[in-house]
Amino acid sequence: MNLPSKLIEDAVTEISRLPGIGKKTALRLALHLLKQHEAHTEALALSLTRMRQEIKYCKTCHTISDDEECSICKSHKRDSTTICVVEDIRDVLAIENTNQYNGKYHVLGGVISPIQGIGPEELTIESLVSRISESAKNEPVKEIILALSATMEGDTTAFYLGKRLKETGVSISTIARGIPVGGELEFTDEVTLGRSIMTRINYSQE
Amino acid sequence: MNLPSKLIEDAVTEISRLPGIGKKTALRLALHLLKQHEAHTEALALSLTRMRQEIKYCKTCHTISDDEECSICKSHKRDSTTICVVEDIRDVLAIENTNQYNGKYHVLGGVISPIQGIGPEELTIESLVSRISESAKNEPVKEIILALSATMEGDTTAFYLGKRLKETGVSISTIARGIPVGGELEFTDEVTLGRSIMTRINYSQE
Repeated sequence: MNLPSKLIEDAVTEISRLPGIGKKTALRLALHLLKQHEAHTEALALSLTRMRQEIKYCKTCHTISDDEECSICKSHKRDSTTICVVEDIRDVLAIENTNQYNGKYHVLGGVISPIQGIGPEELTIESLVSRISESAKNEPVKEIILALSATMEGDTTAFYLGKRLKETGVSISTIARGIPVGGELEFTDEVTLGRSIMTRINYSQE
Repeated sequence: MNLPSKLIEDAVTEISRLPGIGKKTALRLALHLLKQHEAHTEALALSLTRMRQEIKYCKTCHTISDDEECSICKSHKRDSTTICVVEDIRDVLAIENTNQYNGKYHVLGGVISPIQGIGPEELTIESLVSRISESAKNEPVKEIILALSATMEGDTTAFYLGKRLKETGVSISTIARGIPVGGELEFTDEVTLGRSIMTRINYSQE
């Protein structure tokens, strides 16, 4: 794209660095900002800078928080013997929306991905290990639920966590993989369907 | 969405004001910025603020430009007797990419849209009228090509321009509407196909 202005070209280059936004969309967004009042752009720029500079993470579960400890970690109503391990804060929000979980969380900050250069030491895995051993003094953690994406990176991370957490002696489980609720059997891919047969639930034992 | 941090909530609100970006995408973008180096966010914020504050528009054709007059208006190689009227700079870029046009441009800055509260006085129509009458002293403008979108707003604007420019006496044309090159006849909608029959091109006269 041959833009006639260095200013707009810089803005387009910066916007198009965001994931999922190409040059064309970036130009559309830049032109939109130019049509709006100047205060709009300033509010956007300020909120981004402030967020990046002043953001804090909960010292216990590493989720994004305005305080030193997040509201879920602080809450006494939540079961602290169960920890659900997730990739990032979006997964916390998704699980909270289900209203099916009353334990605590641990945010890894990503998943192991050799292609993107993310190894176990980039994630908050050691913090999880020490969190489990610390808990032994008070209320010991009984179960770790791995709620990671069903991708290769998610599975690799789950495998690594399974090995790393073996020494702690806590029970480790992973969320079920199978056909989605409302999903039709004939349109489910064979890997998912195969997995859902392998990990079938025995009703007679319940 | 119930975000645990005011800082990220502000950022998500501001990002989701951009067209085509919802709350979920905004959160994805905000989390991406948090994972990147701080300098990345600062460069983005700075480029947006600078663009909005320092942008200039060409005094002749109103396109975005770093100088008082844009490179196309300044160029002596381009035919100044033909002016192509477009909605915004993206259309200038699109037409330039065709390599089929060697005239000048006039950027309206939008199209007439009563729903969005955009009337003729919000656009650079009067500037176009005075540009045509000014040109009479030097090289008179002979033709105005209306290259507007084939939408209701585009057609309304073209109709208004047609009436408004009648007094100037210049020839007014509009870009052809018809089936796209490579398009199959049977999949073309009936309005487009009907229009392409009405405005057919007579080869024997050429």
